[in-house]
Amino acid sequence: MKNNSYTVAVLGAGNIGSAVISRLLHLDNEVININLSKVLVSDSTKDRDFDSNLITEDFNEIANDENIDLVIEVLGGVEPGKEYIKELLQKGKSVITANKDIIADCGEELIKTAQENNACLYFEAAVAAGIPVLKPLIESLRGEELSRVAGIINGTSNYILTAMEEGSTYGDALQNAQELGYAEPDPTNDVEGIDAKYKAMILSLLCFGVSPSTDDVYTEGISKITKEDFDWAKRLNKTIKLVAQIDNSQEGFNARVYPVLVDSKHPLAAIRGALNAVLVEGENINQLVFSGPGAGAAPTASAIIGDVLSACHQMASNQTNWYPLRTPKTGDKAIKDVDSSWFIRLSVKDEPGVLAAIASLFGKNNVSIESVIQEGRGDNAELVLVTHEASEHNLTSSIDSIANLDSVSSVTSTIRVYL
Amino acid sequence: MKNNSYTVAVLGAGNIGSAVISRLLHLDNEVININLSKVLVSDSTKDRDFDSNLITEDFNEIANDENIDLVIEVLGGVEPGKEYIKELLQKGKSVITANKDIIADCGEELIKTAQENNACLYFEAAVAAGIPVLKPLIESLRGEELSRVAGIINGTSNYILTAMEEGSTYGDALQNAQELGYAEPDPTNDVEGIDAKYKAMILSLLCFGVSPSTDDVYTEGISKITKEDFDWAKRLNKTIKLVAQIDNSQEGFNARVYPVLVDSKHPLAAIRGALNAVLVEGENINQLVFSGPGAGAAPTASAIIGDVLSACHQMASNQTNWYPLRTPKTGDKAIKDVDSSWFIRLSVKDEPGVLAAIASLFGKNNVSIESVIQEGRGDNAELVLVTHEASEHNLTSSIDSIANLDSVSSVTSTIRVYL
Repeated sequence: MKNNSYTVAVLGAGNIGSAVISRLLHLDNEVININLSKVLVSDSTKDRDFDSNLITEDFNEIANDENIDLVIEVLGGVEPGKEYIKELLQKGKSVITANKDIIADCGEELIKTAQENNACLYFEAAVAAGIPVLKPLIESLRGEELSRVAGIINGTSNYILTAMEEGSTYGDALQNAQELGYAEPDPTNDVEGIDAKYKAMILSLLCFGVSPSTDDVYTEGISKITKEDFDWAKRLNKTIKLVAQIDNSQEGFNARVYPVLVDSKHPLAAIRGALNAVLVEGENINQLVFSGPGAGAAPTASAIIGDVLSACHQMASNQTNWYPLRTPKTGDKAIKDVDSSWFIRLSVKDEPGVLAAIASLFGKNNVSIESVIQEGRGDNAELVLVTHEASEHNLTSSIDSIANLDSVSSVTSTIRVYL
Repeated sequence: MKNNSYTVAVLGAGNIGSAVISRLLHLDNEVININLSKVLVSDSTKDRDFDSNLITEDFNEIANDENIDLVIEVLGGVEPGKEYIKELLQKGKSVITANKDIIADCGEELIKTAQENNACLYFEAAVAAGIPVLKPLIESLRGEELSRVAGIINGTSNYILTAMEEGSTYGDALQNAQELGYAEPDPTNDVEGIDAKYKAMILSLLCFGVSPSTDDVYTEGISKITKEDFDWAKRLNKTIKLVAQIDNSQEGFNARVYPVLVDSKHPLAAIRGALNAVLVEGENINQLVFSGPGAGAAPTASAIIGDVLSACHQMASNQTNWYPLRTPKTGDKAIKDVDSSWFIRLSVKDEPGVLAAIASLFGKNNVSIESVIQEGRGDNAELVLVTHEASEHNLTSSIDSIANLDSVSSVTSTIRVYL
C-alpha cells in the first residue's frame, strides 16, 4: 500500500469533483499509482461519467475503510465537510480540500489535528485555484519574514472591474458575468468581498501565523464603484481593483479587503478578467507576484492533483507535512489605525469658500491634501480630491464632517489608493 | 542529529556565500536548528564577517566530516564545484547549489546521483534567483502536461532593454548597467543570451525531461538591438524582450533564447528592469506567471534558505526528495523547423518594383506578409515588414535572397515576434 500506490476517495462529484475524478483516472503513472476506490455523492441514482461501483451515499464507508489513504473533499460549504475532515485526519488519513470556507473557519485547528495524527492536509486550491502559491508560501518562503501579502483573489469581481475599466457599467458587467457563469445568481459573496475575505484569512494564517476572525478583517465590496470612478481613475493613470491586503510591520498586523486605486504600471493593474494574482513582499525577496487562473474546474483540479502528489510523496515517509506554523510577531492593528490615502469625489455648490471649508476640516483631522480638481460650475460642481496618507480614523472623521457642510450636496465616492 | 537540528557547511564565501552565512547564523529557530560548522574559502587569511574558526581551505575536511548533513555550494563556475557536489552526494550528504552552470552541464546526472544515494539536491536559486519557481514546477505542477515555459531569466539584459525602451541607446544602457554592477566588465554571457541558455537548459530538464546540449539551444543575444528597433516596436504597440522559450507539442520539443517583440499587454512586457519572470502554460492551468527579483545576494540567499528548509524537512524522513523526472513526450524539433513571425527592417532604394521583388521572394519561400510600412523616399527609404508565421528555414532563406537584391542596400534588423 505504501509503495507509490495509494487508495483514494473523493467527497463530492459536482463540477470540481468530476474534474478531479477524471484527472485521477488518467494520472500520469510515472509519478504515482492511484486507486480511486469510492466517491461520496448525495444522490446515487444520478448518471455519472465514472464507474457506478465507486459511488456511495454513506460517509462512514469511506471513514471506516482502512485501505483508503487519502480523501479529497470537494463538497462545498462548511458542514458536513468540516466534521468529515476532522474525523478523517483523526483516523490518520490524508486530506486534500479546495474548501476555503472550512480552512478560513478552522484552518489552524485542522492543521494541528493533521500534525498530531501524522496526516497530510493540503488546500492549495482554496486560494487562487490554479496558481501554486500556498505551497511556495508555506515551504519555499518559510524562512522569510514577510511584510505584505496582497492579492486579487476573487475572479468574479476582477472580471466585473475589468469590464468596467473597458467602459461597461457595474450592472451590465455583473449581468454579463452571470450569463457567462462567472457570477452566481446571488453575487453577494463575490462582489461584497466575502469570498476574498475568507482567502485573506487563510493567507493570514499561513504567512503571519495569525487567525483573524471574520469581524477582524475589514471588508468592502465593489458594488458601489461606478463608471465615473473608472473615468477618474484613468485620468489619474490608475485603475480600480478589489484587493485583499495583509500588512505586518512593527506597528502591527492588519488584514482587509477593499477596492483600491492601483497605479496603471503596478503589477496588480495588469491582472485582468477572471485572473488572480498574489503579491508577496519581504526584505530579502523584495516583491514576488504569482498570477494565473483563479477559478474554474480544470485549474482547481490541477491544484488538487498537485496536492495529491505532495501528500502521496509525503505519506511514503510517514511524516507530518507541516513546518511549525509561524508565530505572530506583533499585535493586531485595528482598521481605524491603518494609514491610507483616499480618492474622494464630492458633489458641491461652486461658491466662494467651499474648498477652504473642506480643506480646513481635513486639516483639523490632520489629513493633508495631495491634489484637488474641480469640474463644472454652479450647483452641480464636482470636487475630486486625493489625500496624502492618514489614518482611516482621521479620514472617516474628515468625511463625516465634510458631508455635513451646507455647500456639499453629497460624498459621491471614497476609494482608497493602493500604497 | 536528525531531530530538527542539522550541521551545515558552505563552499564559498563571496558575495552570495556571505549573504547565505549571515542568514544561516540568524535563522528563525521555530523551523529548524542549523549548526554552521565549516566554510570553504580559497584564502583563509582574508578578514571575514563570521567566526574565523569556521574557515577551511581544504574541501576534504568537509567531505569527510560525518557530522555534516548538508552542504551549500556557492563557488561559481563549473569546476571544482561539480566534482565536489558529486562526491558529497555519493557520501549521502544533501547539497544545495545556486550554480546554473553546473546544473545545466550535468543536472540529470546529479539528480540521479542524489536519488541513488537518498540525498537531497535542490537548486532553486539557479533559475530566477529569488522567485520560488523550480519547486512549484517540480512538485505542484508535476501532474500537469506543460506545453510552454517562457521566461525573462536574465536580469542584466532585461535591465538594458528596459533602459532602451525608455530611450537609451544600447551602449549607454550597457555602460550604466556596468556602473551599477548589474553587468560584468565583459558582459558577453548576459547580453549574448548564454546565461539565459543555461537556465533554459535547466527548465527543459525539469519541465519536459529533456537535457538539450548547449548547441541544441539556439541562442541570439541583444547586442544588435537598436534604439530604432524600439521606436518601431512602440509604433506597433510592442516592446522588445530577451526571452528563453521552450515549446513542447506533438510536433516536437524546442528550446531557444532570442530577443522578441512582445505585445505591450502581454504579461512579459510588464517585467521591467532587473526583474525576472517565468511563464508556464498547460491545458489545465492555462497560463501562470511567476515574477520577482532575478539576481542579487539577498534574493539568491532567500532561495537557498528555502532549499535548506526543504532539505532538512526531507532529511528527517530519510527519503529521496525527487519525484521521477518527466519522460520526454516527443522528439526534438530543430530551430529551422520552428515557426515564427518576423519583424524585418530593410534599407531600400525607393524605385518601382522593389516591393514586388521582395514580396515575390517571400512568396517563393511560402512566407506571407502581414504588414508593410515604407518610410522615406529615394536611396535611403526604409521598408518595415511583419510576416505571418512561417518556419525559421523559410524565413532565413527569404532574407538571404532579399539581401542579394540590387535595390536592397541592407537588412537592418530581423527580430522575431513572440507568438
